[in-house]
Amino acid sequence: MKIIQVEGEVSLKRDIDTGTAEQLAAVERIIRQVNEEGDQALFTLTEQFDRAVLSKLRVEREEMLIAHEQMDDEVLEALREAIVNVRDFHDRQKRQSWMTTKADGTILGQKITPLDSVGVYVPGGKAAYPSSIMMNVVPAQVAGVKRIVMVSPPQADGTLPASVLATAYELGVEEIYKVGGAQAIAALAFGTETIQPVDKITGPGNIYVALAKRAVFGAVDIDMIAGPSEIVVLADEQANPRYIAADLLSQAEHDERASAVLVTPSQRLAEQVSKEVMKQLETLPKKGIAESSIRDYGAIYVTRNVDEAIEAVNELAPEHLELLTEEPMALVGRIRHAGAIFVGPYSSEPVGDYFAGPNHVLPTNGTARFSSPLNVDDFTKKSSIISYSQQALQLNGGTISKLARLEGLEAHARAIDIRLEGK
Amino acid sequence: MKIIQVEGEVSLKRDIDTGTAEQLAAVERIIRQVNEEGDQALFTLTEQFDRAVLSKLRVEREEMLIAHEQMDDEVLEALREAIVNVRDFHDRQKRQSWMTTKADGTILGQKITPLDSVGVYVPGGKAAYPSSIMMNVVPAQVAGVKRIVMVSPPQADGTLPASVLATAYELGVEEIYKVGGAQAIAALAFGTETIQPVDKITGPGNIYVALAKRAVFGAVDIDMIAGPSEIVVLADEQANPRYIAADLLSQAEHDERASAVLVTPSQRLAEQVSKEVMKQLETLPKKGIAESSIRDYGAIYVTRNVDEAIEAVNELAPEHLELLTEEPMALVGRIRHAGAIFVGPYSSEPVGDYFAGPNHVLPTNGTARFSSPLNVDDFTKKSSIISYSQQALQLNGGTISKLARLEGLEAHARAIDIRLEGK
Repeated sequence: MKIIQVEGEVSLKRDIDTGTAEQLAAVERIIRQVNEEGDQALFTLTEQFDRAVLSKLRVEREEMLIAHEQMDDEVLEALREAIVNVRDFHDRQKRQSWMTTKADGTILGQKITPLDSVGVYVPGGKAAYPSSIMMNVVPAQVAGVKRIVMVSPPQADGTLPASVLATAYELGVEEIYKVGGAQAIAALAFGTETIQPVDKITGPGNIYVALAKRAVFGAVDIDMIAGPSEIVVLADEQANPRYIAADLLSQAEHDERASAVLVTPSQRLAEQVSKEVMKQLETLPKKGIAESSIRDYGAIYVTRNVDEAIEAVNELAPEHLELLTEEPMALVGRIRHAGAIFVGPYSSEPVGDYFAGPNHVLPTNGTARFSSPLNVDDFTKKSSIISYSQQALQLNGGTISKLARLEGLEAHARAIDIRLEGK
Repeated sequence: MKIIQVEGEVSLKRDIDTGTAEQLAAVERIIRQVNEEGDQALFTLTEQFDRAVLSKLRVEREEMLIAHEQMDDEVLEALREAIVNVRDFHDRQKRQSWMTTKADGTILGQKITPLDSVGVYVPGGKAAYPSSIMMNVVPAQVAGVKRIVMVSPPQADGTLPASVLATAYELGVEEIYKVGGAQAIAALAFGTETIQPVDKITGPGNIYVALAKRAVFGAVDIDMIAGPSEIVVLADEQANPRYIAADLLSQAEHDERASAVLVTPSQRLAEQVSKEVMKQLETLPKKGIAESSIRDYGAIYVTRNVDEAIEAVNELAPEHLELLTEEPMALVGRIRHAGAIFVGPYSSEPVGDYFAGPNHVLPTNGTARFSSPLNVDDFTKKSSIISYSQQALQLNGGTISKLARLEGLEAHARAIDIRLEGK
């Protein structure tokens, strides 16, 4: 792994796929087709892209039961434990509507309301991760979203993977459609005969799904468009190089474009981790992917001291950050930008990916500067409440009219005046 | 005003400007020019679009003091009172970082961190509303954003309006640049020699500003792209038609494309309001605009009963909603979608536009289905905290590895295993 001595700025090599003109045109065409032909477009496009000939879009309850039966009991038990943890962590995020009252009769407040409906996109093939379904569905359920819809491209035999259906069953999701790609996003945003539109679409997908989400944004809300995954480990000389190497590789195995970086003031640790990465890499099933990721997007930055290492982390604003230093908790307050912060030697990133409870849908590409992990707030919205009494308006009406007239909005001022006159 | 009997669905006529191909191309060109030429592009484009020849982009402290001196004392006092109210309401939205601990040593939490820096766009000319500056700046200040930058296009003489500078001074904003349009957005997103980039851009603007915000989204965060303003009044037969007419007109005077709608089960009220609107319209300074808005985007929907009126409101998902019914507070819980809810006869919309405290930056175009008023959360982000003890990992590591292997991610499983082995 390449070791770089830094004194000034650092940066992650980030590779964001914004789509080619052909891909953009294809997505526009698909959205138009779904708007024009409805269900028929979904059948046609599913046959074209997924090689599946369907007679029905919606998954039957029977199919879910069969898939659930097929699952290994121990795996189901593990999944249930994870769901309990994720639900518990998200339950703690729930917010109450609130109000404040004044003696003059004024009532002001914020009403928190769940979204009516949400669509969760589940990618096809090997990317159909049960953990990802859980991480998208649970926050919506905790928020109180009544209608949660899942869409996923069918396999060529017209089925969805048993693990997807079993996970949905465990979560209590009952409205599932066999449709993927840009056509699924279009159906969720604008509706067809079978699929009622939703208010928000979440979940990862390929470039067509990402472009379609961007295209329908505004008509519905979307979650972040995720880039390749990233980890930054901040460690000092007392850290275990084997742990660090294993964690860097667990990021690298995701994707050739995933980024795994160590920032450390210790030259010795840098060298140890570099060797250890190469050693552990040898026996990995996904060696090819991980090797390519480490080569192209991996780096070890050696800073002059811990302070500069922390500044480097804030510049990188990573999706995942591990703190493997002498007093890791004491550093948390100095981290300004990170999606998730894993503190100490036993908080390996997979702890958060699968099990601990916090969401694994995290801001990538440096957007941790201004974005948050997927959370319950993402599935609610606020409405302001303003209730003025006659007394409150008498007291403040003159000031309000004055401000309206300052901005040249006479009708605004008159709406107040007419009430002050009591006519 | 047109009165429409409804039994089924209702909808607002909404007119969203998504930009022409020429406008899109112009915005792309401007962004490229700012990226290539930096400050020089800002000077050139400001001369071209605003007819102002500047020698310096940043507003001097002296200019702010002079502008502040020019302001009417009573107006300043009114502004200060409004700022106190807005600050108070937003203070109540502040959230604390939190954590939860378990007996096995697990610590999980959410760290709330303010954004580092925010740019507020202030439109030029008559649209430079002091209230809008206040509504954008205060939530960022309350959130704890350290660097708040304002940009606004200069007048031909190279100055900014006194009311803009005086409002900034009252709010304590000190970094202000004389630059507007797409070039200002590009500078805020990517930086120039003089203007350091920010993490988020908020504030209203014309179509070029809106397109530029959309174009830079991802590199930085943006607030909602606002459409024309809307009000829906839900009233029953006991409501005062004069109040309703005045409130509808205060919306209509904003913009020919603004939408003002009454929903009522009372045919009598519908007729009274219709007449009253026409009468009050006659003496309005902005009669032309208001008349055109009422004609093209105004409507009175008469429903069969209050329940259907409430359903209609939820379908419309208005930016502003006024409840002028017998027991308005009792209806609040049945309103699922609205940006701000004004309760009772004395809560005229301008109360919220200028003074009460809740934000006047609200979701338009039906996006109240999934969006919120501008609020303190918009200027913070969350980071998850995950700290596992050795004991917690011993307890749960097996389950975590199992889930990782279920998804075929061996390196993830090994990152756990290596710690369980204690090597």
